[in-house]
Amino acid sequence: MRIRVASMISIAVFTMGTSQVMAASVVNNNITEAEVEQAQQAWGKALIAISAAYSAGGHEQAEQKARQVLDAAYGYGHGAVLFKPTLASGEQTFRTSYDGALAYFVGGNATYADDSGFALKGWQGYEFNNAGVYINGDLALTMGHVMLTDKSGAVTTVDKTWGFKKDEQGDLRIVLHHSSLPYSAN
Amino acid sequence: MRIRVASMISIAVFTMGTSQVMAASVVNNNITEAEVEQAQQAWGKALIAISAAYSAGGHEQAEQKARQVLDAAYGYGHGAVLFKPTLASGEQTFRTSYDGALAYFVGGNATYADDSGFALKGWQGYEFNNAGVYINGDLALTMGHVMLTDKSGAVTTVDKTWGFKKDEQGDLRIVLHHSSLPYSAN
Amino acid sequence: MRIRVASMISIAVFTMGTSQVMAASVVNNNITEAEVEQAQQAWGKALIAISAAYSAGGHEQAEQKARQVLDAAYGYGHGAVLFKPTLASGEQTFRTSYDGALAYFVGGNATYADDSGFALKGWQGYEFNNAGVYINGDLALTMGHVMLTDKSGAVTTVDKTWGFKKDEQGDLRIVLHHSSLPYSAN
Amino acid sequence: MRIRVASMISIAVFTMGTSQVMAASVVNNNITEAEVEQAQQAWGKALIAISAAYSAGGHEQAEQKARQVLDAAYGYGHGAVLFKPTLASGEQTFRTSYDGALAYFVGGNATYADDSGFALKGWQGYEFNNAGVYINGDLALTMGHVMLTDKSGAVTTVDKTWGFKKDEQGDLRIVLHHSSLPYSAN
Repeated sequence: MRIRVASMISIAVFTMGTSQVMAASVVNNNITEAEVEQAQQAWGKALIAISAAYSAGGHEQAEQKARQVLDAAYGYGHGAVLFKPTLASGEQTFRTSYDGALAYFVGGNATYADDSGFALKGWQGYEFNNAGVYINGDLALTMGHVMLTDKSGAVTTVDKTWGFKKDEQGDLRIVLHHSSLPYSAN
Repeated sequence: MRIRVASMISIAVFTMGTSQVMAASVVNNNITEAEVEQAQQAWGKALIAISAAYSAGGHEQAEQKARQVLDAAYGYGHGAVLFKPTLASGEQTFRTSYDGALAYFVGGNATYADDSGFALKGWQGYEFNNAGVYINGDLALTMGHVMLTDKSGAVTTVDKTWGFKKDEQGDLRIVLHHSSLPYSAN
Repeated sequence: MRIRVASMISIAVFTMGTSQVMAASVVNNNITEAEVEQAQQAWGKALIAISAAYSAGGHEQAEQKARQVLDAAYGYGHGAVLFKPTLASGEQTFRTSYDGALAYFVGGNATYADDSGFALKGWQGYEFNNAGVYINGDLALTMGHVMLTDKSGAVTTVDKTWGFKKDEQGDLRIVLHHSSLPYSAN
Repeated sequence: MRIRVASMISIAVFTMGTSQVMAASVVNNNITEAEVEQAQQAWGKALIAISAAYSAGGHEQAEQKARQVLDAAYGYGHGAVLFKPTLASGEQTFRTSYDGALAYFVGGNATYADDSGFALKGWQGYEFNNAGVYINGDLALTMGHVMLTDKSGAVTTVDKTWGFKKDEQGDLRIVLHHSSLPYSAN
């Protein structure tokens, strides 16, 4: 529930014959910069959590965790998501469906035979560096570098764009996700 | 311009071989509660300013000031405004056009013969008491009591709803304004 | 679910080595003019339905029906609603809470002792005449006259402003409702 | 101006003692699917126009045309644009400023020494294949393949995400643009 009683916006005291003071009820459906930052952090933690689930319990636990992540952090429950994962290509470049996204993260789906499971790569750490943030109502867009560290300490940098939509419970959900490897002239 | 460089959202330092730090460019099109409060205060000040212009320079100066207020604070430049003034009725209840709004505030328009000029009533003070504020992207709605004080010290209370739209310059403009006298059972 | 597969937006056929054609998945969260009209009609029908329930089953059935209407057509489930009913006044002018709205429609609440139940007045028909409609994303505002006909054939005209918010199920919910009797100079 | 007089939304005829019919004034700030398609087509035409200007008049004419395109089709006039061009990398991956975008399209800027001018490559044709379109108020997101044909007939396919914002004149402007070469496992 996105309700706050914001007394600061009650400019004047209402005293129509009594001494009662009313405070304005405030509903605010907008996304804040702080919420964007939290949603990015949550994505990083979720990726590591899937990797950890895989180490601890194999593919089954990883898939279970990945489903939790997709349910909680992506918008597939409300329609198609515009998702271009880093390593997807050809006719399976875009994963607008839940199944396509799940296959990308944990593999094991014959329909997406090229997917080896991006989230199973033993990710240990993440860093974000936003080049830009664009907030428009209940939708926020971010673009920047994401640096992921695997168990060997190797860092993979990707160019990443996200679109987050705030849902009715006040949670941010990914409705757009374009990730690509940096361009190399060679 | 609604641009801010928000270093706080730069979660990670970008060090791809160098020590350069990038700060995210942030564009935020949303309305804040503080901006809503300021827009309400600006409306109150503008009403008093029209009354003062009338006292100082008669109808001509009042109309000039009213035009400035309509240009700066209302959205007629971008299309129809949903405006139901307190004392308008019949076929002229709704003033979706600029001319209808101007006539309501300063009168002097034969097409709106019942308009005596609401802003010419010698208003000296104003108070707001918002019952509720609803913010949805670049649009904010407020509902509450507005208490206007005239030169004799008499207070008129009206039930008022406003809709403010943030324009590309970052200014809030009234696109909805429904004002009505309190219901009396007698 | 607000998902449509819109083949018309698939500008080009994707033939990367195959003859497969992809159609774009489209999610559109916006309100249309047709949806606004339907929501207004639904409000009119609901008012008559409460009146009919009262005739058929007394206060208990009327309250049951009013609760259904509030649950289905208003936004109280997501926070405060900016509601100024036609006949409410004083400190109870604004009904930002569910209980205040219910009391207005069907009475029977000692906290709102002046409420006799607006929906219990035997309403038989309704007509809308919008002076203006303002659509901004998932929020639409309307302003105009509403003419309600009671069982004696008498017509009551009110000046009415509504704000409709489209929820995640695609249903429009009233988040703003300002109703007032026409101003009379006498 | 986004004003239409929509008689269809005038549900009831207002006849308060007269036979006058009022039609509702409608302001609609939302983006439609058709507008998204037009904006994509406009981008394709603009790219070819810059190539043609280069062939006809060299770098000076190309830059002049590119500035027209950036002014008309991108949102740099309202703040930072989230732009990740196809062939940009390293610390210059993201072109949130006008100068960075211009350098990418036509080169000739020592600050962006790696830019050879993407729009100068003799582009002759374009096709779009949207995988998904997400419309949220005055902002629309698209993701899909774009196929560009050069003068030799060779086709370059890129994975492309756009964000279009409708401005106050009703024109769509690119506020997000992430373009990347398809992932190759080899």
